[in-house]
Amino acid sequence: MRTVHTLLRNWMEAAGMSVHVDAAGNLRGLYPGSTPHAPRLIIGSHLDTVPNAGPFDGILGVVLGVTIVEELDNQRLPFAIEVIGFSEEEGVRFAKPFLGSLAVIGKLDRNTLALTDADGITVEQALRNFDLDPTQLPAAILPTNTFAFLELHIEQGPILECEDLSLGVVDTIAGQTRAQLIFTGHANHAGTTPMHLRHDALAAAAEWITAVEDCARSHTGLVATVGKVETLPAATNVIAGRVTASLDVRHADDAIRKTAAAAILQEANFAAEKRGVHLTLNLQLDQPAVPLDPRLTTPLGEATTRAGHSARIITSGAGHDAMILAPVIPSAMLFLRSPAGLSHHPDENVLPQDVEAAIATALEFLSLLRDHKTILKDTNA
Amino acid sequence: MRTVHTLLRNWMEAAGMSVHVDAAGNLRGLYPGSTPHAPRLIIGSHLDTVPNAGPFDGILGVVLGVTIVEELDNQRLPFAIEVIGFSEEEGVRFAKPFLGSLAVIGKLDRNTLALTDADGITVEQALRNFDLDPTQLPAAILPTNTFAFLELHIEQGPILECEDLSLGVVDTIAGQTRAQLIFTGHANHAGTTPMHLRHDALAAAAEWITAVEDCARSHTGLVATVGKVETLPAATNVIAGRVTASLDVRHADDAIRKTAAAAILQEANFAAEKRGVHLTLNLQLDQPAVPLDPRLTTPLGEATTRAGHSARIITSGAGHDAMILAPVIPSAMLFLRSPAGLSHHPDENVLPQDVEAAIATALEFLSLLRDHKTILKDTNA
Repeated sequence: MRTVHTLLRNWMEAAGMSVHVDAAGNLRGLYPGSTPHAPRLIIGSHLDTVPNAGPFDGILGVVLGVTIVEELDNQRLPFAIEVIGFSEEEGVRFAKPFLGSLAVIGKLDRNTLALTDADGITVEQALRNFDLDPTQLPAAILPTNTFAFLELHIEQGPILECEDLSLGVVDTIAGQTRAQLIFTGHANHAGTTPMHLRHDALAAAAEWITAVEDCARSHTGLVATVGKVETLPAATNVIAGRVTASLDVRHADDAIRKTAAAAILQEANFAAEKRGVHLTLNLQLDQPAVPLDPRLTTPLGEATTRAGHSARIITSGAGHDAMILAPVIPSAMLFLRSPAGLSHHPDENVLPQDVEAAIATALEFLSLLRDHKTILKDTNA
Repeated sequence: MRTVHTLLRNWMEAAGMSVHVDAAGNLRGLYPGSTPHAPRLIIGSHLDTVPNAGPFDGILGVVLGVTIVEELDNQRLPFAIEVIGFSEEEGVRFAKPFLGSLAVIGKLDRNTLALTDADGITVEQALRNFDLDPTQLPAAILPTNTFAFLELHIEQGPILECEDLSLGVVDTIAGQTRAQLIFTGHANHAGTTPMHLRHDALAAAAEWITAVEDCARSHTGLVATVGKVETLPAATNVIAGRVTASLDVRHADDAIRKTAAAAILQEANFAAEKRGVHLTLNLQLDQPAVPLDPRLTTPLGEATTRAGHSARIITSGAGHDAMILAPVIPSAMLFLRSPAGLSHHPDENVLPQDVEAAIATALEFLSLLRDHKTILKDTNA
């Protein structure tokens, strides 16, 4: 991370930004506006990714922020631009994501600072070990004249590729239901237990997994996934006595998501009851959808068209730093096509022409913000 | 095992048997017949069981053999009785079952002797470590005048309990198909990959597991089980890219089993193809059913009735030492009810009245063998 900071700091300074690392480890480069107290636009994304990942998740959005400022060639706008490379978006180390973006809205709280990594090191200590001073976290909070946040990010999905499009304008970050289901039957001998005397936990789970897929396919925009199944005792010749399964349901519309999740869980009850299998349900997450701000997404769509590309409106199925900022700062996101839909994978990629399209779109977006100052006024600047 | 041997040896000798441990570690007590070269009846089962098991699997059949001889009270029959406590039936240590029973039919071969346990100790060395001499294995082979094998064993299943019966007369040891199926799809983000662009290995496996259950339910006497499923990468928010699943199919009729197994594997192809998921099939076992000998099972059924019990004909879904001996020595098996169908479990149990029923039945069986010498003649004595 220090190497990345050094490299980006050099590029930022070369583009005319003053650079510092805030107390949460976010790298921040400020490109001044035409007046000393000009309102501030944030462009950014995260610098971390997951293990065994590719080179574009998150960091592409930071590099693009620097590039956009470079393209301004020291031209002053009626607003300042701060490019932020957020720290710890993935939650790999402390099992809690978005630490950097939480800090800039003042929500990196005591409980989060007390979380520990696998070695028992707290977030607070990790910050100190990186030569940061957690007592300075309040200074990391965005100034009140921040009027917008723009995040550029790879799609991490196959939709744009499938439709042969370079860019997508995100309207909403989907809400999410996560649950763990435990099917408890009876582990019996696979050879000596006739079918009608079984309480097969895996047969129940399997019928349910099929129902999950059916349900998701019958609701436009819904995704529902069982990604993890563990059987016990996990022997070829023993009927599964216990199956633990994960559930992940997402949709842009919370009402649709909740109705679907309830129907899916009801299917689990049916599949378990039919076989005399007991079902335990642990609801782990019920995260509402986060709409992005039409006062920004509309001009972002217009900018996309002006740059010569289709303004494909897309829902983000994944969480992003914009999800954290959006409730506080009007936010927009621009997706770049992910070849083969790959992300969090060594083969994660991005096409040069899509990067050019994103830069051109962002510059058009800055022009629209500059020319239609009502957008600034409408928001909280 | 030494403690068990010592205890049983004392009981065997007290019942009038001459006892030795053969070169395969089988404990063998010979109760002489009325003439020096009388044909020989074997009664026995195994002395080992699995870890964390109960006290009746296998060893009950050995103790019952000793009890039956005790009940004869030194009365001589026109045949000798050899009670055998077989070694290593489960295959826990060397991952190969039936070592003791293979030895008595001369099939504990060089390859088997060369198998190693988790510590790298071969079967041959393990025998030596138990003060046995593997060069003496030929002397363990049953004499040519052995005319029958009777194995008494707990059912290890719920059928007798469900029908409120003490005993079952086994007609066949079911044949078995075992396979490993690998469904290979694409591991993608659960939030960003729409349903129609997925290649979900777990959804394919789940549809197939449901089909396995359906197929087994629609064929009388068929059992088919998927007991083990492993997903990769096994994350809540990632579509399963690879699922490995086990299949175990059993039936007394090999033709029915093979037809059903083929249909089940075809269902796996359908479920995979529908989702653009690749299927790899590893057939691991295609073991034919082993019929027991009607020249013994018919009088065993008659003996059961004479002892005042129902002669419930039952298929053994599990393998037993009798499966190894039956192709060489005419064999029969009597099952005792397993309360709650439990076996290989600390709560494995047997009811005292069922033990009494088994002893009474075995003694009636000996009377029938004695009185109807044609049975001895029909077989190979």
